Amino acid sequence: MRAKTAIMQKKGNFKMGIIKLKNRVCVSAVASVCGKKEYDGLLGAFFDEHSDDDTFGRPTFEQAEEEMQRRCFAHALKKSGLTQNDIDAIFAGDLMNQCTASSYGLLDYGRQYFGLFGACSTMAEAVLLSALTVDGGYFERCAAIVSSHNCTAERQFRMPIEYGGQRTPTAQWTVTGSGCAIIDGGGSGMYIKDVLPGIPVDRGVNDAANMGAAMAPAAAHTIKRYFDESGRSPDDFDVILTGDLGEEGHGLTTELLAYEGCSLGSNHLDCGMLLYKPEQDVHSGGSGCGCSALGLCTYLFERFKNKEIKNALFIGTGALMSPMSVAQGHSIPGIAHLIHFSSEV
Amino acid sequence: MRAKTAIMQKKGNFKMGIIKLKNRVCVSAVASVCGKKEYDGLLGAFFDEHSDDDTFGRPTFEQAEEEMQRRCFAHALKKSGLTQNDIDAIFAGDLMNQCTASSYGLLDYGRQYFGLFGACSTMAEAVLLSALTVDGGYFERCAAIVSSHNCTAERQFRMPIEYGGQRTPTAQWTVTGSGCAIIDGGGSGMYIKDVLPGIPVDRGVNDAANMGAAMAPAAAHTIKRYFDESGRSPDDFDVILTGDLGEEGHGLTTELLAYEGCSLGSNHLDCGMLLYKPEQDVHSGGSGCGCSALGLCTYLFERFKNKEIKNALFIGTGALMSPMSVAQGHSIPGIAHLIHFSSEV
Repeated sequence: MRAKTAIMQKKGNFKMGIIKLKNRVCVSAVASVCGKKEYDGLLGAFFDEHSDDDTFGRPTFEQAEEEMQRRCFAHALKKSGLTQNDIDAIFAGDLMNQCTASSYGLLDYGRQYFGLFGACSTMAEAVLLSALTVDGGYFERCAAIVSSHNCTAERQFRMPIEYGGQRTPTAQWTVTGSGCAIIDGGGSGMYIKDVLPGIPVDRGVNDAANMGAAMAPAAAHTIKRYFDESGRSPDDFDVILTGDLGEEGHGLTTELLAYEGCSLGSNHLDCGMLLYKPEQDVHSGGSGCGCSALGLCTYLFERFKNKEIKNALFIGTGALMSPMSVAQGHSIPGIAHLIHFSSEV
Repeated sequence: MRAKTAIMQKKGNFKMGIIKLKNRVCVSAVASVCGKKEYDGLLGAFFDEHSDDDTFGRPTFEQAEEEMQRRCFAHALKKSGLTQNDIDAIFAGDLMNQCTASSYGLLDYGRQYFGLFGACSTMAEAVLLSALTVDGGYFERCAAIVSSHNCTAERQFRMPIEYGGQRTPTAQWTVTGSGCAIIDGGGSGMYIKDVLPGIPVDRGVNDAANMGAAMAPAAAHTIKRYFDESGRSPDDFDVILTGDLGEEGHGLTTELLAYEGCSLGSNHLDCGMLLYKPEQDVHSGGSGCGCSALGLCTYLFERFKNKEIKNALFIGTGALMSPMSVAQGHSIPGIAHLIHFSSEV
């Protein structure tokens, strides 16, 4: 019973739960922009643009991250044959303090704007809120855009990269990348069938160099809630794609769910484990808002496009701490938002 | 034509625009918690709780801010006769890096959670997204909760308060306070009739000690869009309540709109000018997420409750910068989300 308590410690009121969309809503187009390391990785062929020096021609890394979002949105518009005027609202966020990569990066488009902060789960949060507001008929079309940049994140959350600090084996590599998904009330693509908003879960992990362990209980919590409530099982999905648990968090999530009799099997993939080659030495895997966004906007979208899969769960995972909260002795809460994509309307 | 250009520089596609709610949705209950200075101010009698030393019994100011959100939500639940299980989702945010006041403060309630970052406009963003998701039938009842704390904001955005830095005349005082509004698909209270999401606007203001000037163009932009599209005029509203423009921003907004032939008149109030007594020496007025939240959850709600007003516009204003973006020479974009409240369903 130990693990049962661990995953489902708080029994909520399950009015709160899976939301089935009423209308045809899909991710009709995606775009992705990344850094050199990501381009050299396993999914290099699928990105729309990369920067060989991670600066995107801008004088600071913070402005490089803004530029990634700006270009990523431009690619998504171009690929879908839309202009910015066809987008009713943008849901965006990033890891930088006060989410400035999003607010500055997307400023020139002059669109209605909702800033989000879900840490590394922000892409899932943005897609989820876009899906609900499009499904409800409030917007015809939204864009979900997020980013992270290794150099902005490292100097903000840990040390400037020039310091050359040693990384622990459970550490993850903050992805330099931005992903954009167009969520559309018309068109075709990956259809969004239902969604499950995450509940923050804190199981006392306070090692800021082990985000996988901090987020695994939240991922397990959301996945367990989803299968319990829907009556579906992992076998009903061709892919169960988590955001950025990395090897450590992937293993822990599998273990926590196994205690509950829920076996995810070989369909459970994690974006943090899809991006880099083994020789790229990223330790436990990729992380950051850009990690799940790149996984969603390349791997998952491509597999649907190629008709290789019919149903997938995308579970964005985030660690809701700050350097200050960790310094003050707080443990690290995680959150995981879930989206069920299907090839059929 | 100068001012016309200044306000409406970017003509968007006005599919994007006012969203009229389809169903009965209201703010059925509110709560507010604040610091000593706010308690000593003009609205002192209306707050549910305050702390005489602004710590709320916690060892750090950051944890004090978390505690404010925790207690504020508890007050809102108690006043409305609800338990946390009656709340399907929380939309929350604050000014602290990575929005930790919200994620830690609300963790123990175990609710579905959407983290937002709209700077000082976050309360309006939270109420707006709660309204759409309740109206669409996705949630029965949501909570919009935000906070700011003078001591966490000052040391993060400017200097530790112990430094005793001189403040410029246009500077505003970050409010120590948290507000919570329950957005309900049933019940009664302030009914939400329509909403208008904000578009970020940057008119080149780069003085981080003059947030009013940075936000005024965004406030004017949203207000102008609203009156243009709805065909209504300022006279149709008993109160037009902006979030935290302060005296400087209030004056600039009035001036920008006057150039367009739009006179807000004496009904235009600003939460930043409602909270403190003149002798409290806050220079241009209050600011921060807590500022508009306290104004909404005390002044505006009370006036509706006492049947003194029938229609009001609430326009949450935010400055979407960070200390890093200002240090790197960026100007400061503002945003303003609008909500139309009415005494009638």
